[in-house]
Amino acid sequence: MIYKQSTGLNTDLYQLSMAAGYLKAGIADKASFFNMYFRKTPFKGGFAICCGLELLIEQIENFAFSQSDINYLKKIKSSSGEILFEDDFLETLLNFKFKGDIWAMAEGEIVFPLEPMITVQGGLLECQILETLILNSLNYTTLVATKAARICLASGLEPVLEFGLRRAPGIDGGLSGTRACYVGGCSATSNLLAGKMFDIPVKGTHSHSWVLSFADELLAFEAYAKIFPHNLVLLIDTYDSLTGLENAIKVANKLANPKQLVGIRIDSGDLNYFSAKIRKTLDIAGFTNTKIFASNDLDEYIIENLKYQKAKIDVWAVGTKMITADGEASLGGVYKLSALQNDDGRWQGKVKISNDRTKINNPGRYQVRRFFDSDHKMIADALYNIDLKKPESWQIVGVFDSDLRKNIINHHSSRELLKPIYKSGEMIYNFPTIHQVRQNTLNNLATLDNSVKRSVNPHLYPAGLELSAHLQKAKFIAQVRDSLFANNN
Amino acid sequence: MIYKQSTGLNTDLYQLSMAAGYLKAGIADKASFFNMYFRKTPFKGGFAICCGLELLIEQIENFAFSQSDINYLKKIKSSSGEILFEDDFLETLLNFKFKGDIWAMAEGEIVFPLEPMITVQGGLLECQILETLILNSLNYTTLVATKAARICLASGLEPVLEFGLRRAPGIDGGLSGTRACYVGGCSATSNLLAGKMFDIPVKGTHSHSWVLSFADELLAFEAYAKIFPHNLVLLIDTYDSLTGLENAIKVANKLANPKQLVGIRIDSGDLNYFSAKIRKTLDIAGFTNTKIFASNDLDEYIIENLKYQKAKIDVWAVGTKMITADGEASLGGVYKLSALQNDDGRWQGKVKISNDRTKINNPGRYQVRRFFDSDHKMIADALYNIDLKKPESWQIVGVFDSDLRKNIINHHSSRELLKPIYKSGEMIYNFPTIHQVRQNTLNNLATLDNSVKRSVNPHLYPAGLELSAHLQKAKFIAQVRDSLFANNN
Repeated sequence: MIYKQSTGLNTDLYQLSMAAGYLKAGIADKASFFNMYFRKTPFKGGFAICCGLELLIEQIENFAFSQSDINYLKKIKSSSGEILFEDDFLETLLNFKFKGDIWAMAEGEIVFPLEPMITVQGGLLECQILETLILNSLNYTTLVATKAARICLASGLEPVLEFGLRRAPGIDGGLSGTRACYVGGCSATSNLLAGKMFDIPVKGTHSHSWVLSFADELLAFEAYAKIFPHNLVLLIDTYDSLTGLENAIKVANKLANPKQLVGIRIDSGDLNYFSAKIRKTLDIAGFTNTKIFASNDLDEYIIENLKYQKAKIDVWAVGTKMITADGEASLGGVYKLSALQNDDGRWQGKVKISNDRTKINNPGRYQVRRFFDSDHKMIADALYNIDLKKPESWQIVGVFDSDLRKNIINHHSSRELLKPIYKSGEMIYNFPTIHQVRQNTLNNLATLDNSVKRSVNPHLYPAGLELSAHLQKAKFIAQVRDSLFANNN
Repeated sequence: MIYKQSTGLNTDLYQLSMAAGYLKAGIADKASFFNMYFRKTPFKGGFAICCGLELLIEQIENFAFSQSDINYLKKIKSSSGEILFEDDFLETLLNFKFKGDIWAMAEGEIVFPLEPMITVQGGLLECQILETLILNSLNYTTLVATKAARICLASGLEPVLEFGLRRAPGIDGGLSGTRACYVGGCSATSNLLAGKMFDIPVKGTHSHSWVLSFADELLAFEAYAKIFPHNLVLLIDTYDSLTGLENAIKVANKLANPKQLVGIRIDSGDLNYFSAKIRKTLDIAGFTNTKIFASNDLDEYIIENLKYQKAKIDVWAVGTKMITADGEASLGGVYKLSALQNDDGRWQGKVKISNDRTKINNPGRYQVRRFFDSDHKMIADALYNIDLKKPESWQIVGVFDSDLRKNIINHHSSRELLKPIYKSGEMIYNFPTIHQVRQNTLNNLATLDNSVKRSVNPHLYPAGLELSAHLQKAKFIAQVRDSLFANNN
C-alpha cells in the first residue's frame, strides 16, 4: 500500500463529526489548548526517546482535503440513511489551513510519562482535526526509537545494525521504523529506500539462499568473494557454523588481501558458544581483525545476557524485535484538550475525570523544564502551568503518586523542552539533520543516570508537576467530584 | 512519511548484493523455486488468516528502479571505499521486469505453520529480489488479520469496530492494518482514508474532548444531539459513567424520536459492572433498543472474559491491541529457496540445515491440499511435493514432530490452496472484492473445528508433509549431516 494523495482523510471519522459539531455549535474558533503525552514508559523501562516530529510536520504541511475526499465524505450516511456532513462543513474542510501554534520536544529528547511531547494551541476545530495525525505519526516512531535506544544501550559502544524491514509494517512502516531505529542510536540499516531518503548508512551481507544456490558452501563463498573481494562478510551457518568458518577461512586465504575478510555472520545456534569458538579459530588463523556479526531475534535482554557471558560478538544485527518494538503494543500516546480560553482572555484548565488515576489529564497549558547539575546530569523535570506564577523555588509532585515530592535545589542549569514549531500556522522550526538527531539522542542519554537507563527495574526519574500546578489540578478534580457527589447522592 | 515513488528500493541491501552476485556468477536466470511461510502460529493460537496479497501484487506491479534509485545505488560504497554495484548490474535493475510465476493462497484462507502462503518460480535474480517486498507486505497484514479474526471469534456474532488508527504504524500501517482487520472479520472502521480507498464501512462517536469543550456534560450532549439527532451515540464517561447516562437519557427524551439514541459508549471503568447498570437503567427508561458500545484496550481475552460474565455489551470497539497485533512482535514469515532446476530439467530440492528443527525448510516444490469431511469441515492439510508421484492414499507426517502421523481416510472433498497469480510475469488473478475476502474468512473459519479456534491452548490441526515428501526431506537432511560428519570428525 502506497498512499500518494492528500492526507486530510488520514483520520478517524469522529474527528470530523466533532469538527462539524464545533462548527454548528459556533465554537469552531474557540481558543483551545491540546497536548499529546503517554501514560507509562514503554518496556517497563525508565524513559522514552521522542521521535517522529519531522514526519509529522511533513504531514501537517500536506494536510488537505481534495475534492475527491470531499465527495467521499458527502456520501457517508448514518445507518438510518441521513447524510452525516452538511455542505458548509465540507466547504470548511476544503479550505482548511492550520493557523495555530505548535510546540514540541525535539526528536532525540528524553521524555517521561505525562510530559507533553507536543502541545497545540488554536481553534477547537483545527486542534481536534489534527489529533489522529499526531498520534499516528508519533506513537509508533517514539516507541521504536525507544526500543532502539534500549538495544543500543545494551550493546555498549558496539554497532547495532537495523535489519528489520521484512518484519516492518509495510513500506512506510519500514521507512519510519528504520528512521526511528537510527534516531535511537543504530549505526546503519539494510533498508535501501530509507538509506536513499534519509541518508542513513546501509549495510548488508548475504542470506542462506545464496549458499543454497551453489553446489556447496565453498563454491558459494568463492563466488561471493570474487564479486565482493573487499569488505567480505560471510554467513557461515547454512549447514554448520564451524564447517562454514573453515570454508570462509579457506576462501579468505586465497584473497589478494586476506584481511578483506572483514566479517563472519552467525544467525542461529548458541551465539555465545559459537562466537567464542569462531573467535579462537579466527585468531589462530591470523584473522584477528575479522569481526563477528551476530543476528537471530536479538533484543536488549539477549544482548545484555550475551555480553554478561562475554560473547565474542562485535556487531549486532537486530531485526524483528527492534522494528516491531517487541514487548509493547503501543506507546499509548493520547492527545487531550487541557484548556479553553475564556471570553476575558484567561485560560481555563479542563480535566477529564476517571477512577483510573493515570487517565486523568493535567488541566491547563504546560511547558516542561529540565534541571541539570554541575556535571550536566539530569536532576529532575518540572511540568509547569504557564498561566500560573513561576515559582521562586521549584518543588515537584509525582504525577501519579502525589506522596512523591522533590525540592529541586542546587541545580546548575535548566532548559525548556518544548520548542516552538508553528506560530500562527507558519512553520518556524529549523530541523536538524537526521545525524544531528541521532547525536542528540546519544548526548541526551549521556546526561541520564545509568540507574534510569537500566533495561529492567529502572530507578524512577523525578518528573513531576510543579507544586502550584499540582494544587490546581487537585482542586479541579475535587470540584468535579464534589459536583458529582452533590448530584448523585 | 508518504512514499510516492517506485518501490524497487523497498528492499534490503543484501538482496541487491546477492542479485549482483547471481548475475556475475552467471546464474541469474537459473530456474529456482522460493516459498514464503511462517514457523509457528501467532498468539499461541491454532491458525492464521492469510492477508496482504492484493497489496503485494499492487507493489509487484509497480516494482521498478527509477534513474534516481540507480544513481543512489551507484553511490553506495563499502567501508573501504570501493563501489558496490557495477554498471551492468545497475542496467539490469533499470530494465527489471518480473517474468516468473507466482502462486498464492487467497486472502482470507486459513493457513498453518510451514504451509507456503506464496510460492515464486523464476530466475534466481528475480525471485531473490522480491523477497523483502513479499515479507514486508504479508508479515504485518497476516498477523493483524489473524488477531482480528481471534477478536471477532471472541465476540461471537456481535460487531467489532476497528478504532486503532492512532496507534497504527503511520498512514500506510493504518491503511493496511485497517484493511487486515476488516479481512479478519471486523464490521467497520473509524479510518476514513481506509473507508474511501477500500470501501470499508466507517463508524464513529465522539471523544472526551467534545464534552470538555462545553461548560458541562449536559450542554455537550444537547449540542451533539442537535447536530446528529439521528443515530446518536454518546460517550458517557468523561466525568462519571452513571451521571453521564442520566444526561444522555435526558437529552434523548427531548429528541423528536428518543429511539434515535442508538448507542451509549463507555471507555473506562469496570465494563461488566457498568454495562449491567447501564442496561438496567436504559431498559427501565424505555431505551431497550439502545446498544451499549464498549472500548478500552480490548482484545480477545478481555472480550471472552466479559462475555463469560454476561456483560451487557452489544458492540465492541477495538483499537490498539488489534491493529498492533498485541502479543506477537511479528508473524515471523520467511522466504526460502527450496528448489533449483537441474540442466536436465529435473527440480532438485534444497535444504538449509539447523540444529533448531523449526529453521529447516521443506526442500522441493510444494502445493497444499486441504481435505474436508461430508459436513464440509476441515480434516487435514497435506503439503505435497509436486515433483513426486501423487500418492494413492494420503498420509501426512508432522512438520516439526515426525512422530505425529495421520492417514487421511474417508474424506469427502479436497481442494488445492495455492492459486496461480502470475504466469510468466503476467498477472492472471481475478481479485475478489474486499467484502468477498471478508466473507471468505468467515466461511473458512466456519469449516474449522472450534477446538482449533480456541484462543488459548487450541487443539493442533493436522497439517503435515505428505509421506513421500517427508521421507525425501529426511533423506536430504541425513545426506547433509553425513557429509558434515565425514568432513569434521
